[in-house]
Parts: sequence; C-alpha cells; structure tokens
Amino acid sequence: MKIAIDAMGGDFAPRSIVEGAILAAREHGVPVVLVGEEKTIRQEAAMVSGSDSLPLTFVHASEAVGMDESPLTAIRKKKDSSIKVAFDLLKKGEVSAVVSAGNSGAVLATAVFVLEKLTGVDRPAIGTIFPTLKGSTLLLDAGANVDCKPFHLVQFALMGDAYAKYILKKEKPIVGLLSNGEEESKGNELIRETNAILKRSSIGYVGPVEGRDIFNGRADVVICDGFVGNAALKICEGLAEAIGAMI
Amino acid sequence: MKIAIDAMGGDFAPRSIVEGAILAAREHGVPVVLVGEEKTIRQEAAMVSGSDSLPLTFVHASEAVGMDESPLTAIRKKKDSSIKVAFDLLKKGEVSAVVSAGNSGAVLATAVFVLEKLTGVDRPAIGTIFPTLKGSTLLLDAGANVDCKPFHLVQFALMGDAYAKYILKKEKPIVGLLSNGEEESKGNELIRETNAILKRSSIGYVGPVEGRDIFNGRADVVICDGFVGNAALKICEGLAEAIGAMI
Repeated sequence: MKIAIDAMGGDFAPRSIVEGAILAAREHGVPVVLVGEEKTIRQEAAMVSGSDSLPLTFVHASEAVGMDESPLTAIRKKKDSSIKVAFDLLKKGEVSAVVSAGNSGAVLATAVFVLEKLTGVDRPAIGTIFPTLKGSTLLLDAGANVDCKPFHLVQFALMGDAYAKYILKKEKPIVGLLSNGEEESKGNELIRETNAILKRSSIGYVGPVEGRDIFNGRADVVICDGFVGNAALKICEGLAEAIGAMI
Repeated sequence: MKIAIDAMGGDFAPRSIVEGAILAAREHGVPVVLVGEEKTIRQEAAMVSGSDSLPLTFVHASEAVGMDESPLTAIRKKKDSSIKVAFDLLKKGEVSAVVSAGNSGAVLATAVFVLEKLTGVDRPAIGTIFPTLKGSTLLLDAGANVDCKPFHLVQFALMGDAYAKYILKKEKPIVGLLSNGEEESKGNELIRETNAILKRSSIGYVGPVEGRDIFNGRADVVICDGFVGNAALKICEGLAEAIGAMI
C-alpha cells in the first residue's frame, strides 16, 4: 500500500514532512510517494542518512498552497499544487491514501473536487481521534462544516460508525451525539432533531452524550457539527498546553 | 453583606453545603443565611464544632428541587422551595446574593421569575470563570441558552464586559467571540453576524478567538452560546480528569 504525502503542506514543510515520511518508511516499511517541488524535497531527503535505501519515490508538483489561502482560490488557480497532484495519484490508483499537514480547507475541497463524494454523502467531515483512558474516541466533524442540518449529522454518524468498524476495528461501535446533557429534552434544535432520526437508525446509537464522555470511553464515536468540533479540539489543545505549563 | 445559601441544592446537600457555608463564615467572616428544611440544617450545623459562634442564620423552606426536576415544574409546584425562598430574601433586600449548587435550570428560572431581568437583557447567561496561565477568563454563556440569536450573544458580551470591569476589576476588559479561527470569514452564521455587530460596539472587542484562547489570556471575556459553552466546560472537566488519572 503506497501513501502519497504532501511534502509542501504544514508549518514546517518541507523539511519536517520529508523527515517524517522517511521515519514512516523506515519504521513501518511503508512505500511513500513524496509530492512537491522535486529538487527541494530530494535535497531534503538526501540530508537524512540511509534514506536512499528506503521505499521512497518523488513526484514533482510546481506549486504549493499556503496555510492562509482560500481553498477555492487554490483549486481554481493552483492546478499543479502538491495537494492536487497527490489526489490525482490517488484518483489514478497509483497510491492508496493521501496525507497532508497543510491547509485543511484546501485538502478537503481538492479531495471533493478530484475524488467526488460517495453516494449518500452530502458533505465530507474531518474525523479526529482523541486518546482516552480506555483506548480512543473518534470525533467528527472536527471542523469541515460549521453550519449543519440534521441530515448532515446523521451522515456523519453513519460515516463514523463505518470508520470505527473498519479502521478502528471495533466490532459494534457505540455512537453518541454531543449534547449538553444526556436527557433527550436537552440539546439545541439541531441536536434534538438529529437525535430523533438517529434513534430510528440501525447503528449502535447510545443517545446524547456530554463533553466529558469524549474521554471516558462511553462512546467510540462522538458526532457534532464542525463549529463545535473545532472548538472542542482547540479547547483541548489549549487546556493541555496550560496544564503542561503548570506542572 | 449577607449571602443566602440554598442548603438543599447539590449532589451532597445538605451536609456539604452546610459545611461549606460554615467554612465561608469562619474564613471570610461573611454572614450566611442558610435556607432549607430548618430542623435538618440546624442539626447539620450543630455537628460542626464552633459553628454556634459564627454569623449563621437559618430560614425555613419546606421543599427542595431535585437535580432532575423540570425548572418550570419547580416554579409552578414548589412555591416554598429553598431556591424560591432564597430569591425572595434577595428581592426583599434581606441578602445581597444567592448561592446554589442545585438544579441550575431551576435556579435560573426562579431568578428570572422572582427578580425579573434588567432592561435590555432578554436572557440571563451563566458565567464561568476559567483559571488561566495569566489569571482568569470569564466564559459566557456556559449553558443557560442552547439556541441563540446574534442579539443574545451581543447582550452576553455587554454583560461579560460589565462583570469583568466591576467584579473581576479589569479596567478595560478584552472581549472575544468564540469561533473556529481568528479570521472574520470563519465562524458559523451566528458568529459571523454577531461579529459584525460587536465590531461596531463600544466595548473592548478583540474579534473572533479560538478555543485555545480561553486559557492563554488573549481575552478576559469569551462569548459563545450556551450549547457550545456547556460543551466547552464539560470537555475541560473530562480532559482534566483524564490527564489527572494518567499522571
């Protein structure tokens, strides 16, 4: 299974990305395709000793999308960006997955543009795995869709269920809907309507869960809209940093 | 300044509440009015040695609101609840504040019912103070209003500004609006509309802030709707518990 890596995306690209790709190839034996400004990334790779014996290949892309660039502008104007070239490789079946630490909006938009969506999926979601006391919890959407309708959240629940089953290998995943209390009377309008639909679904839906349940293993998958999910993620980063600074 | 304490509210009421009230009276010399089933709370107080020499008084209330009771049912049916009696004391000017660890919905609804709202305030908000690396950040709404319109958030911003000024003694409080990025193009519909209004306000509005900014002192006051605020609060509790269990 070959993996394409966007060598130009991320705050410390390309150096840290190339170094990380080499570590992955060395430790896991994964064939890695580094996509980006070929001369630069070959030079970066050459600086890491022993990299020439690893299953690394290089594919040239003449452009890179900046962290603050608009996703739509990137798609329209940078037709040879490392993100676009990486997804083209996936589309052609030359790689099995794309990894990018770059502009997440551009990655998402390019993925939809190049690969299109599965039937029944109106919007892609960003899934984030939180480490917990009992293993891991998948939270989605972590930021792709800030304004959602109930049917979007229902689709996220189905996608999260499938991800937990086939990627996290949980036989019968427990799916929860993030709310401000476990009672069905709680939640905002979006959550109450989504709950009413999910209750009738065939997935292992446990009902509304609370923010603290992300960490205690009560659910394998926690569903929320991208605004709340992004806030959740960044609040955790902020709190963990603050605790780290205090202890 | 006398403080009324709802002795019947909270998971470990009345014992822990009475003990806490006695500690407050002893350590800070605050005159405390304990409101609840008088015989029971007098007995609890008598069990703490030295409590008879403290500025403690007792006011009888024949009923208590349970943690899972509907706020509206509590208001309608329990006209002699400890929460109601405590707010009546405040209304009559016999105390300066009410403290309750009980059913927050019932406390909020009773406060509105007995005291009414200030002109210009459509809905009360729950304010929560987060300890940060640089002092403290006030977050509101932490759970009173799960569905908000922009003008509600604008009112919360004005209330938060006043609280930070007069209670937290910050001369020129910096107010931020919780979003999924600092750029004005980010945020959901509610946040983008609220931001447009707050930009024209006279408070020290810094613009959209991210979840991590709650902890780094970037803003003195962070505004969000009650659904997001409640999730934020409980995610922090969950993460802090998980980190505590790991280290």
